[in-house]
Order: sequence, then structure tokens, then C-alpha cells
Amino acid sequence: MPAPGPDVLVGIGDDVAVLRDGPDQVWLATCDVQVEGAHFLRNAITPVDLGRKSLAINLSDIASAGGSPKFALISLGLPDDLPVEFIDGLYRGLRSEAEHFGTEIVGGNISGSKFGLFIDIFLLGKASRENYLLRSGAQVGDQILVTGTIGDAAAGVALLQTPPSVADAAYAEVARSRLNTPTPRVQEGRLIGESHLATAMIDVSDGLAGDLGHICERSNVGVRLEANKLPVAAANRSLAQIVHGDEWHFALHGGEDYELLFTAPKAHAMELSSRINQATGTPVSIIGEVLPQEESRQLVLPAGQVVPLATFGWDHFKEKA
Amino acid sequence: MPAPGPDVLVGIGDDVAVLRDGPDQVWLATCDVQVEGAHFLRNAITPVDLGRKSLAINLSDIASAGGSPKFALISLGLPDDLPVEFIDGLYRGLRSEAEHFGTEIVGGNISGSKFGLFIDIFLLGKASRENYLLRSGAQVGDQILVTGTIGDAAAGVALLQTPPSVADAAYAEVARSRLNTPTPRVQEGRLIGESHLATAMIDVSDGLAGDLGHICERSNVGVRLEANKLPVAAANRSLAQIVHGDEWHFALHGGEDYELLFTAPKAHAMELSSRINQATGTPVSIIGEVLPQEESRQLVLPAGQVVPLATFGWDHFKEKA
Repeated sequence: MPAPGPDVLVGIGDDVAVLRDGPDQVWLATCDVQVEGAHFLRNAITPVDLGRKSLAINLSDIASAGGSPKFALISLGLPDDLPVEFIDGLYRGLRSEAEHFGTEIVGGNISGSKFGLFIDIFLLGKASRENYLLRSGAQVGDQILVTGTIGDAAAGVALLQTPPSVADAAYAEVARSRLNTPTPRVQEGRLIGESHLATAMIDVSDGLAGDLGHICERSNVGVRLEANKLPVAAANRSLAQIVHGDEWHFALHGGEDYELLFTAPKAHAMELSSRINQATGTPVSIIGEVLPQEESRQLVLPAGQVVPLATFGWDHFKEKA
Repeated sequence: MPAPGPDVLVGIGDDVAVLRDGPDQVWLATCDVQVEGAHFLRNAITPVDLGRKSLAINLSDIASAGGSPKFALISLGLPDDLPVEFIDGLYRGLRSEAEHFGTEIVGGNISGSKFGLFIDIFLLGKASRENYLLRSGAQVGDQILVTGTIGDAAAGVALLQTPPSVADAAYAEVARSRLNTPTPRVQEGRLIGESHLATAMIDVSDGLAGDLGHICERSNVGVRLEANKLPVAAANRSLAQIVHGDEWHFALHGGEDYELLFTAPKAHAMELSSRINQATGTPVSIIGEVLPQEESRQLVLPAGQVVPLATFGWDHFKEKA
């Protein structure tokens, strides 16, 4: 692989590519796809929600770099049997999500697809050069923070297969909605970038443990996560216990949360957490600490027992670059 | 659809989106995909050629705007049964095409795909603001020019089904190679843009007649094309006659030529043609003239008969934006 050129500040290996844009600004470029059968089932999500989610997962990548989404290109692969109403709904969802997050759809491509539907999106965002954040940069002693709650989307997936009777009905609705209409933390990400208090950031798409593993790899650090500080609904833990025999399974290994996972020096973590919460209403939890790399990745269970944090994620196959 | 914002000079509706980049430069953004079963058959193209072609069709879009390709993101949908050697070959093809045309692969995404392979590419290019060309801009009286030869890729498709015995063996090889390893006219496009002599440009991906139709629609003009000036191989016309009963079929309605189709004032057309040919070695033919819109789209057959130029293209379904 040739070395990146002078205008490429970050190439393959992070959630976004970072491209120089004059002396002070950068472009952030990312793409992510939703493929029928692999990422969604056509009968388990409405076309509008599918449109929204397809853009949301890309907005989340720009947010995770502390940037502002600007321009989207939409590449659609449409099977012959897809009703025109479905396509209309898909576009409505794409447009409403774009408008909500100040993003302009500037082009794209429509192609036939013999077998299944796919929605592939290319998103360009902007950030000032001193604000953007990467997976690398976490320092030993930093605290680990996460927005919102985690594990809900994975519970939503489980509930597609498991009789809903095992779950609290109200929570089942929450889980389904978190799976089908995730909220990208765009404002939160921008504020975290602008604060200059965070050291590394990623969005939780592959599962908290897996994505924290990405920060560890790129920052050359270890981590200690405290299970009882994880922002996980009680109903989520019960369902994970029933389905996987492990109450932390969805929270740690679920994926598709699209929350922001970031690190900040101990002296600033609490301040950053409350600043984001006050500005956006989104809760921010401090869930662990960055360790030297040789201490590896640890999970402290509620009773105090320390176990290795397995970092297998949502989908082994998916390797974001 | 909301009106484009101030930084969007061209949004949906051309081959590329044109985004303001400071006072003098623009970014050109495009995406195009190759889907198994719809655009290629896995047993009819080598993985290296498929990688090259997937990037080439996007390079051609940037070339058609008179720009220089800069950065690519590669989104792959990989079926489970795809051998790792195939993926290696695909990457080799992508990298070699990128290097050859000065383009950097800065990121991307790999996803599972239950049914078929797809290679979706997002390409960013640059141009100076005074150089870039669009489908709009053709003026009544302009001449119509095209690079290279046309119809060969369509003959290559036909030869996948038709016994090669009906075709000249040497030409069959040309046709196959034009189908599987098209040459994007990047240098030619940039020179045409820099010349400030052309008025509109598009690449021939859907078929000459269809793509000329796009220029007509966007420029609000008609055209007269002269069949005997089309740069079409005699062997191509023979094969088209056998397969379609119309010797001009591949040339006019074939598609996948990835040649540049452009317009220029009569006073400059010949000069532009020879300038491009001398600088690049690529032949440039003058094939017709731009008419007022009310004169519609005409084809002059070799015997002098004037017939309507049917503008159905390669793929009705495919609508580039």
C-alpha cells in the first residue's frame, strides 16, 4: 500500500478518512451500507425507517470524528420486485434524516440488483483541523465515556427471533425503535470535538467491547471497564440473561448502538460529561479507565471480580476503514 | 426537494455533484457500482479486471466533468462463497488503476452480502471552477465530438452469448478487452476542460444516443448525428447487423464505452480535436451538430436519409444523478 499523500491526514484504518482542506479545515469522508439479508430484513423495518437508518449510520461516523455532516451521495441497488411505494418511502426517510441533520443529498446512483436491496451512502463532513478526533489518542489514566444507553439495538435483533413474551412489552418497543431508528449523536460529537477535552472517539457500531478494542489497538493502550457503570436498561440485562446466559452480552457485544464512545483526562471527564448532557439532554456515563497496554483489556464485574474483556463484536466480517 | 445550498454548484442530475472549494476550485463527487448479475458475471471477468473496471467507470465520470480524480472510498459487498484469491485480485486491480490515474484509496467499508458481489466506489475529484464541464451548456451550431471508438463493449457483451465464429477473431478480442478493461479518458477530459473551448461534456456509459439525449435534455437543444462519421469498427457494424439487424445498434445503443462525448463551437471543434489527439494519441471524431430543440434528435444515415435518433440506452433502469 503506498504511503498516503500530503493531503491525506488519515487514510484507511479509522471510521473516516481525513482530507486536508486549506490550513484550518478538514474534510471527513466515510461510507457505510445496509444490505438486505445481511443488515436488515425487508419485512422487519419500514422503508422510511430504513432510509433514515441508512443515513444515520453514516452520520454517526462523521459525529464520531467530531465533525459536521455536509454532503451525501446515495447509491441504491434495487431488486426488480421492489414496489415503487417502497422506494418512495426510502427516499422520504433519507430526505427527512438529511434535513434533520443539516446534510444535503447532492447525487448518487441507482442500479439494478438481481438479488437484494442495498443502500450505500457516501458522506462528506467538515471539521476544523484542531477539533477532529480519531480512534488513536487515548492516554493512560484517561476515563472512558459513552453517550446514551447501550445494548438496546441488539435486544431489538433478538426480539425479531425470540417471543416478545419474555421481554417487558414497553422495553421491547424501545429496543425495536433503537434498532430501526437509531439517533446519530451529531450535536454531541461536534461538542466533544469543540471542547478540546477528549483524546479519542469512535461510534459504537460493532459492540462496545469491540469498538473499545479499536481504540485500544490504535492508541496502544489497555482498558478497564466497570460493568456496573454501563448505561444498560434492567430489561436489557434480563433479556440478555435469558437469550445468552450473560446479562452483559447485548451491552458489550451487541452493536448498532450508534452511541459515542470517547476518552478524556480524569481531570476533565466529569466536566465534559455534564457539559454535553446540559447542552443536548443526552446522558453521558463514565464507564471505565484507560490502562497501559500491558494490562490488556479488563472487565470488572459488579461483585468486583476482574475478567478479560472479550472483544469479539457484532460482526467479525465487517472491517470499517 | 429543497433548493441546493450555497456550496452546491451542481446537485442531483449530472454525472457528478460539484461542490464549492474556496473561490477558485471545486470538488467533483460521484459514485458508481458494479453489481454481480446486473453489471458483470463472475466467470466472465478476472478479479483484477473487475477491480480496474469498477474504478475506471468512476474515473470516467470525473473525466467527463474535466476534473482530476483524487480520492476514492471503496465499499465492497462480499458473498460468503467468494474465494480470498478473488478478493486479493480485486484489490490488486483497484490499486493498480488508482495508481495509474493518480488517485488515492483513502477508506471504505467491507460488508457481507448474502447474494452477490458488489463493488461500489465513491470518487472525489478536483477541477478549477472555470474549467469544469456539465451536460448543460451545448449551444445551437456547436459540433459534437467523441473520443476513441464506440460500440466495442456492447459487442463484447453480445459475444458472451453469441458464438464467436460470427465475429472476426481479432475484433472479438478487442471487444472483450474494451468491455472488461475500459480506459477512462482522464487526461483527455482534463485537457478538454482546460481548453475552455468545449461547451458541454458527458461520458458514454449508457450508449451514445442515450447520453447525447442527456446533453439535449440539460442543454435544451436538438442534435443531428451523422452515422458515417461515427468511429465504429467495420467488424462491430457487421456483428451488430447479425445480432440486431442494425449495423449501428452497438454504436448508438450499446453503452459502457466510457468515451467522452462533448460539444464545441464550430470555429474551435477541429482545433480542439487535433489538440487532444496530439497530446494524448486518442483519436477524436466530429460526429454531428447541435440543433435548436424544436428540430429534435436526428440521425443521418450513410445514404442521406434522416431518421429520428432513438435515445433508448443500455439500461433503462440506470439513472445517473
